[in-house]
Amino acid sequence: MRNMPPVLAISMGDPAGIGPEVILKSAAMLSKRRGTPAIVVAGDLGAMRLAADSLRGAPKLFEWHPGDKPIPLKRGVNVWPLTRLPARSIRPGHPSVTSGAAAFEYVVAGAQMAMHGEADALVTAPISKEWMNRAGHHYPGHSELLAELGHARKWRMMFAGGEVRLALVTVHLGLAKVSAALNPTLVLDTIRLLSAHLRTLEGLKRPRIAVLGFNPHAGEHGMFGDEETRAIEPGIRRARRAGIDVFGPLAPDTAFIRTGGKFKFDAAVAMYHDQGLIPLKTLEFDRAVNITLGIPFIRTSPDHGTAFDIAGKGIAVPSSMIAAIEYAARTASRRDRGMIIGKSLT
Amino acid sequence: MRNMPPVLAISMGDPAGIGPEVILKSAAMLSKRRGTPAIVVAGDLGAMRLAADSLRGAPKLFEWHPGDKPIPLKRGVNVWPLTRLPARSIRPGHPSVTSGAAAFEYVVAGAQMAMHGEADALVTAPISKEWMNRAGHHYPGHSELLAELGHARKWRMMFAGGEVRLALVTVHLGLAKVSAALNPTLVLDTIRLLSAHLRTLEGLKRPRIAVLGFNPHAGEHGMFGDEETRAIEPGIRRARRAGIDVFGPLAPDTAFIRTGGKFKFDAAVAMYHDQGLIPLKTLEFDRAVNITLGIPFIRTSPDHGTAFDIAGKGIAVPSSMIAAIEYAARTASRRDRGMIIGKSLT
Repeated sequence: MRNMPPVLAISMGDPAGIGPEVILKSAAMLSKRRGTPAIVVAGDLGAMRLAADSLRGAPKLFEWHPGDKPIPLKRGVNVWPLTRLPARSIRPGHPSVTSGAAAFEYVVAGAQMAMHGEADALVTAPISKEWMNRAGHHYPGHSELLAELGHARKWRMMFAGGEVRLALVTVHLGLAKVSAALNPTLVLDTIRLLSAHLRTLEGLKRPRIAVLGFNPHAGEHGMFGDEETRAIEPGIRRARRAGIDVFGPLAPDTAFIRTGGKFKFDAAVAMYHDQGLIPLKTLEFDRAVNITLGIPFIRTSPDHGTAFDIAGKGIAVPSSMIAAIEYAARTASRRDRGMIIGKSLT
Repeated sequence: MRNMPPVLAISMGDPAGIGPEVILKSAAMLSKRRGTPAIVVAGDLGAMRLAADSLRGAPKLFEWHPGDKPIPLKRGVNVWPLTRLPARSIRPGHPSVTSGAAAFEYVVAGAQMAMHGEADALVTAPISKEWMNRAGHHYPGHSELLAELGHARKWRMMFAGGEVRLALVTVHLGLAKVSAALNPTLVLDTIRLLSAHLRTLEGLKRPRIAVLGFNPHAGEHGMFGDEETRAIEPGIRRARRAGIDVFGPLAPDTAFIRTGGKFKFDAAVAMYHDQGLIPLKTLEFDRAVNITLGIPFIRTSPDHGTAFDIAGKGIAVPSSMIAAIEYAARTASRRDRGMIIGKSLT
């Protein structure tokens, strides 16, 4: 237990992307608030300085190394200089194998800080899947890499916006393959990971979870496919027997209609990528946070990419990064107040 | 060409549902406006009277028969008494085989009015699929029945809300079967039907149409499935060669994000039911209108069901029915001003 504000590790993301810029804009904004976290950027000092030079009112940068006490956010931002990239590798909008390899290194270092207790949570700035892969690190994205680093066998992607919270049963899978992938255990595990997260880290005592169907009208009693009866309903029943307040399957198209401005649930479980991300991004663009459930540390990220096309222009919007930092700080504080982190289901 | 306000046929829907109530509430609201259409309800006089008795300020009802000149909406609502149902068959909230059979009859009569030129458009109040089927009429819904009555071989469902307009390539099909159903012609036909409708009936000279992908991130260059390369992209290319301003496939999750309050397109084409209806209902609930493309008359309907659970309580919200009537009246007037209706692609 500690009363200090939490320390957040932020992996800087691709040095040629908008990561450094949105980190600094967010830090400048958040430094004015009370009880702000300390921030340690796992990244490159040159890239951070380049971004700071072109921003008005950018926070001061302090070199940080493992074991150092981090400077509080009111005074500035700590940077752990994991690379000393040459000028050509930190040119905004010009990613390379070097920048892709560096971005990978920052994520690994940030995850280790979180796992070793040097940080209370990890926030990841955007990387380029393409350039990380070209640099020889073959992961579909952050989540898969972090799951491996955290030795998590069962993990899920969760998203939280101003109003919508949801977890995905399947993620980066062709839609034609989702039906065969669905089974009761996959649905049950998603409900359990989401419920554990909401109880321990969001402080909801008995979260009400809605599970979406897979087919139009949730299958209309088996008329349009058997995924509901074969996989989703059994998963819901097992979760209910485990004491979780869960219901469904809901007709996907009407699930996100608000009555009196409110959803019928605290959080939803979606069967496939777009079923969850269409309503999330339609309702919450610029505010949504990506969270990895089932890994042994808190991890959030903004819900946008490297945006190489606008990097270095000073026009990147930091709202999603601010939301990611705030969500990480809030959940880390709650954990520090003595609540137990949901045990991984591995 | 005519300068008279259009005549709309409205099929009354299931006598035990909220059809009579929302028709009367809509008529009362619209009668105060200038240039309102005349309304002929194909239905049951007893059911309409029952609904009128429990509403304050309900419009007067006038018996109408084919060949009669319809009373203008300012003076009241015309009712074509196709049935004389006994009291037990018009009890709100208590559908039966009799009410299901009657609802079917109203749709057929309304469609005939529209096809014979006695009405300029058809608006359909909600029927119960279940009770229509129990009454021996085996159709998945209104659209399939109207397509058969209109001898349309190629037809599509379209939806229009305050901001979103979209057409569906597939509708009531299990999601696992959509992939195999998709092909370039199916995509092309949807684009063509939508484009023809927008040009002729919505008065958009060169509508800009966005086509959604099928997979997460629209397949990310074939990484997550081949539906984009095999069916969607060839369909788009063929439509573009036919002179239509169409683009895509777009990543489905970000397609409905507005920049400066606006979508990047006039209308969208969605590959499956929930891909289109999740954003539509999330953004436009209570305002969305359902339109059938490809049949030889204008047909709209509100985007809700019979709502037997609230029928007869006076609490049904008429906003979607009002939108359906307004959309039908507006497009019918446009057609009457001498524009050519989009030829069916059959």
